[in-house]
Amino acid sequence: MTRGLFITLEGGDGSGKTTQAELLERWLVEQGRTTLRTREPGGTGVGVEVREIVLHHRGDIAPRAEALLYAADRAHHVATVVRPALERGEVVIQDRYVDSSVAYQGAGRVLDPREVRGLSDWATEGLMPDLTLLLDLPPRAARERLDGARTRYDRLEAEAAAFHDRVRAAYLEIAESDPARIAVLDASRPVEVIAADIRKLVEGLG
Amino acid sequence: MTRGLFITLEGGDGSGKTTQAELLERWLVEQGRTTLRTREPGGTGVGVEVREIVLHHRGDIAPRAEALLYAADRAHHVATVVRPALERGEVVIQDRYVDSSVAYQGAGRVLDPREVRGLSDWATEGLMPDLTLLLDLPPRAARERLDGARTRYDRLEAEAAAFHDRVRAAYLEIAESDPARIAVLDASRPVEVIAADIRKLVEGLG
Repeated sequence: MTRGLFITLEGGDGSGKTTQAELLERWLVEQGRTTLRTREPGGTGVGVEVREIVLHHRGDIAPRAEALLYAADRAHHVATVVRPALERGEVVIQDRYVDSSVAYQGAGRVLDPREVRGLSDWATEGLMPDLTLLLDLPPRAARERLDGARTRYDRLEAEAAAFHDRVRAAYLEIAESDPARIAVLDASRPVEVIAADIRKLVEGLG
Repeated sequence: MTRGLFITLEGGDGSGKTTQAELLERWLVEQGRTTLRTREPGGTGVGVEVREIVLHHRGDIAPRAEALLYAADRAHHVATVVRPALERGEVVIQDRYVDSSVAYQGAGRVLDPREVRGLSDWATEGLMPDLTLLLDLPPRAARERLDGARTRYDRLEAEAAAFHDRVRAAYLEIAESDPARIAVLDASRPVEVIAADIRKLVEGLG
């Protein structure tokens, strides 16, 4: 049914997802494609409100509640933004999707990754990306980038470095389990080198 | 593990849940029990924010997103309010729980009731009430009560009468499937008559 392309960018904060999304979009527009840039959480009005709860709520949120809030954001975002764009034939470039939930919530926290994935599948009615770009970077390197650029840490960013190590390991494990969809990119390389790799991967989608 | 009692009240708006919860609580306190009154959605800080999104968001919310938001509220509420109270040996009297989700979301909307129940089971790690009091009333009678008492309708209340008929039918079907837990009470009778029935049911729990 969908005639567009659904491309997601994954990786820790500071891995360069925003920069690569911008470069990819610019190139796609030059090719004459219509693109839609979006992100999770927060790509819709409902998502902004959910994001506000998850990232800036005072006090702890029960882990299952947090996973369900992310899934709610995703359900609304897929139904009202992503699917309609794909049906119009657009290229959707999205910052974070299912793999983020599994890496952060499942492996990083206390929940069973398979259950977190199941929630997400229910939320999206099984919609998966045509291509996922995993920007892989050691958390220490990402941290140094963020320290230079950001003025304020949110709740997740403030968690311990050990957590970010577990997230990275979880991402790599997910990529290994689904190599046809997920491309792992060494994000420590120069921006233009990574962008060229990404263009080749997107061209390969046909 | 839980030494308390978990009692939920179910039924459409205007069926008398609040009045019966108050009378039950007063009686339990007279018996020397410690009680905790709470409700869904909105029994916690996170819940208030979720409730705000679900009931007063401008524009439609995707059905799966709505179900996931309710489940998120429930997960947080059970983990931070209900289970701790039960472990302290208190009697939890709660306005709406799993059966509301199944009746309103599953049967009333477009989602599979078994999937909605599954979400809820995951959210609560399977915590079910010791007793559920279903206050059954034809929607027309409930509407007349609300018209007298309320100054403002929220989004759910504004939906068509046919929807409330379907919710009532769904509630009765759920009650039929779990008669050991759910007592159906004719809510068109005088308040004190219903309250006496409820006291007998609670005494029967031992």
